[in-house]
Amino acid sequence: MTRHPDDATPLPTAAAGVQLQSAAYEKLLGALREAIARLAADEPFERLVVPPVISRATIERAGYVASFPQLLGTVHSYTGSAADWRRLAPLIAESGPWHGRQTVSDLVLLPAACYPVYATLTGQDLRHPARFSVEAQCFRQEATAEPGRLRTFRMAELVTAGTPAHCLDWREHWLQRVADWLETLGLKPSIDLADDPFFGGGRRLYQAAQRAQELKFELRVPVADGLVQAIASANIHKDHFGEAFAFTADGAPGHTACTAFGLDRIALALLHTHGSRPVDWPEAISTALNGD
Amino acid sequence: MTRHPDDATPLPTAAAGVQLQSAAYEKLLGALREAIARLAADEPFERLVVPPVISRATIERAGYVASFPQLLGTVHSYTGSAADWRRLAPLIAESGPWHGRQTVSDLVLLPAACYPVYATLTGQDLRHPARFSVEAQCFRQEATAEPGRLRTFRMAELVTAGTPAHCLDWREHWLQRVADWLETLGLKPSIDLADDPFFGGGRRLYQAAQRAQELKFELRVPVADGLVQAIASANIHKDHFGEAFAFTADGAPGHTACTAFGLDRIALALLHTHGSRPVDWPEAISTALNGD
Repeated sequence: MTRHPDDATPLPTAAAGVQLQSAAYEKLLGALREAIARLAADEPFERLVVPPVISRATIERAGYVASFPQLLGTVHSYTGSAADWRRLAPLIAESGPWHGRQTVSDLVLLPAACYPVYATLTGQDLRHPARFSVEAQCFRQEATAEPGRLRTFRMAELVTAGTPAHCLDWREHWLQRVADWLETLGLKPSIDLADDPFFGGGRRLYQAAQRAQELKFELRVPVADGLVQAIASANIHKDHFGEAFAFTADGAPGHTACTAFGLDRIALALLHTHGSRPVDWPEAISTALNGD
Repeated sequence: MTRHPDDATPLPTAAAGVQLQSAAYEKLLGALREAIARLAADEPFERLVVPPVISRATIERAGYVASFPQLLGTVHSYTGSAADWRRLAPLIAESGPWHGRQTVSDLVLLPAACYPVYATLTGQDLRHPARFSVEAQCFRQEATAEPGRLRTFRMAELVTAGTPAHCLDWREHWLQRVADWLETLGLKPSIDLADDPFFGGGRRLYQAAQRAQELKFELRVPVADGLVQAIASANIHKDHFGEAFAFTADGAPGHTACTAFGLDRIALALLHTHGSRPVDWPEAISTALNGD
């Protein structure tokens, strides 16, 4: 390896959108994690670390399959006999189709960090807002492999559940707070009304409804030459998860909101803006990042 | 939530062998990560953080599919048209078979942290041993769900590649070093010659060969009442990966060795041995863990 040990540029692998990360990169990611924890210190978030797979039934219930089937990775495994496997095994040498008998399991790859949280609220009537701070390695089967459009990436989220008014205020507060924080890191995000990549014929209708209700705002910055991507978002889901997972707030269907931090995208934007060696970044940026 | 905030016991989810982890648990896991980094500080390991999915072709080439097809999770996705999806989507409400048209992707779930490392050596002739320190969230489709037998879990590994003599010495050194370290944490591991859960008819033959060549040693401790599991292992692979990924050492097929730390199993063993609140553990254990 001839890389400089301070170089935080991720390393590509044989698979598009799948990267290995160096010690310097991980140090940057850890600093971002700590900085978000400091931002969140004013509110009593319950911290949960979430694994990269989740119950398929939970994701069905959450509505993700219906909206984004093209992005979902399902986990399959071999459940056949050893005798049948003897016929499949010789196919490995020619790279397939040894996997022709794989069957769907009870798990899917986690598409966003917040999904396990809502199920923990089932049956509750919230008298005070619930707050969670989560982080997970997420997966989306992206069709393109432009920089920043990883298939496996880390996402941190702050999530709240409560009344409609609480969720609306909270999202407004966090949208501005994250924008201000990114400014201190030398990024100049635009704040844009946004929509999600729904699949199929209803796409335009869903996106128009999402925009009309101002459910999603994205913070966007350049992550590579000529390429602007969302590095964070602030969202309200109205009563979508309250209805799906059967929890209420003050007796009415629970509303939820979340602020999502695309940790690998924020890292990419910082490396693009300030250079590939974080140790050489301007002191003001390092100070803002590390909270010294 | 009525959990005490110092309680590090993992939280179950709707899926067997898939847990959420609290802040107290993550603090423990972070301390283990740091302790392993201190153990490894004597040698020039290159640190790589590895994502939870990997190229299917790499895992085929590594021989994992042939040996452990029953444990491998393959990643599938929907590649059909929007028109076809309109027929599948109504099946979501009854939990399937909307997934009947999923097709295998180029990715599988990573079964062990070290697999991406060997491919980075392809084409090299090593004049000095290569050393990597890796960590990843791994996946195995375990058939049982006893405590500690998670399907998604974190593994740290120290890996080396070089000559047969180097790999043999290195494995011997690390087997003892890890055993000594676990003793300082108040665990009393047995050091056992071990084998892997090969699939199918050749199982006994492969296991006997593995034992005869003393390829694998496990460090085992109680992780729950009446349940002893391996929490670490030290392994030599002879020229298996050197042949598969075409690298050499001093002109001969490269040998490799690794020491694997089951981070979630070590955490479980510590919680079982010292109690569910790490802040209440004996001072000697905390000192050994945190390196104060």
